[in-house]
Order: sequence, then C-alpha cells, then structure tokens
Amino acid sequence: MEAHVKLWFEHDGRLVLSEYRVQLLRLIRDRGSLAQAAAAMGLSYRRAWGKVRELEQNLGLPLVHSDVGGAGGGKSRLTPEAEALLKQYDGFARDLEAALRALRQRHFGGLPGQPEQESTGARSR
Amino acid sequence: MEAHVKLWFEHDGRLVLSEYRVQLLRLIRDRGSLAQAAAAMGLSYRRAWGKVRELEQNLGLPLVHSDVGGAGGGKSRLTPEAEALLKQYDGFARDLEAALRALRQRHFGGLPGQPEQESTGARSR
Repeated sequence: MEAHVKLWFEHDGRLVLSEYRVQLLRLIRDRGSLAQAAAAMGLSYRRAWGKVRELEQNLGLPLVHSDVGGAGGGKSRLTPEAEALLKQYDGFARDLEAALRALRQRHFGGLPGQPEQESTGARSR
Repeated sequence: MEAHVKLWFEHDGRLVLSEYRVQLLRLIRDRGSLAQAAAAMGLSYRRAWGKVRELEQNLGLPLVHSDVGGAGGGKSRLTPEAEALLKQYDGFARDLEAALRALRQRHFGGLPGQPEQESTGARSR
C-alpha cells in the first residue's frame, strides 16, 4: 500500500505552483528558451507564455526574463526569484515524500493491503 | 501560500483508496444503502457497485455487505475491514494535514507569496 499525492500551492485561492508548472519552469531554466520548453511539453509558445505570466501575476513576482529575439525566438532565463521558488518547492516536495513514508508506516504498517486491527499495537513495526 | 494535496493509495500499481472512494464508503455507512450513496454522488447504482467491487478486488478485502432487497434495493453496511480502513485513512489524512502545515512553515514561512531568500534564516518564524 503506497500513498501518493498530487501537490500544488494556492495563494488567495489562486494557483501559484503545481508539479506541471514547476516542470515548465525547470525546462525554461535547463533549455534557456521558453519556445523549447513549450515544445518539450507539447504546449504552444503562446500558451506556455500565458502560464508563466499567470503565475507571475498570482505570485506578484517576476519569474522569467526573456530577451527579445528574431524569428527563432530569443533566450529566456529564470529570475533569482524563480530559482529560489524552485528550490523551495523541491525542498518541500522532498520533505513531503519523507513525511508520506513515515505516515504510511505509522498508519498502514501491516501487510500490504491488510489493514491492521487497532489491537495489534503494530505502530512501531 | 497554502499547500494542497490530492491523496490516494495504490497497491501493486492499482488504486485501492482515494478521497472520492472514501466518500462513497462513508455515504454507504451513513445511509445504510448503496443505492442512496450512489444517488448522493450522482452515480448509477451499477457504477457505484462496480467501484466498490473493484476496491474489494484490489485490496483483497470485503468492504460492503448488502442484503438482497426488493424493488427498492436492500440495505448495505460496511464490513469491519472497511470500518478499520476508513479509520486508518482518516488518521492518515489528519496527520498529513498537520505535516503540510509544518512543511509550509518550514519552507514558505515568509510573507504569503514572497519566497524567502536563503539568507534570512526565517525558518523559525
């Protein structure tokens, strides 16, 4: 029995970070290009750009800086704010995975798929 | 900035518990009727029954016992295994919420929407 979670963050009820958007930001960082990051995720440039701008508005932070380019598109890079945000997200996600493992052991520490009876005192297994 | 998660459990790669299915089991318990639980969730009886049977197969545990009924349908009740499973799920979900609050404080302890710089040492706030 394995616990799985889908993680996202909201601020004032608006989405500000999700696994999908983190993936987009990572691709922009790694490829240095919003166009290439969009293509890698099967998104149009316009749609990827819109997602970045939406995140920036919801967070109130600049995330991606793009140089104006020619026909092939310019280069894009993450702002220091976006780098810090990714680092925070990664730390959060890593600790969440550890917490899930601990919770699984505490609550479902018995045989896989076999819920424990409360009387077994098996929490320490 | 609030962390949100969608939680589910798998066993051997197969879904064995999710918020949606927990809700279905709770409704069966509270209403004593699979037909009424299905209606409350906007599911056909057949579909709700299928979901319960799928969970039972994936878990290898009996979850719902139904008395054969007449035209109006019989009564349904959770097995002790299902009651224990719901209790485990609730405990897990409760502890997960607490873990999320702690992680949010640790990783995003600054002003809402304002990622901290690493140098602020603000983890204890």
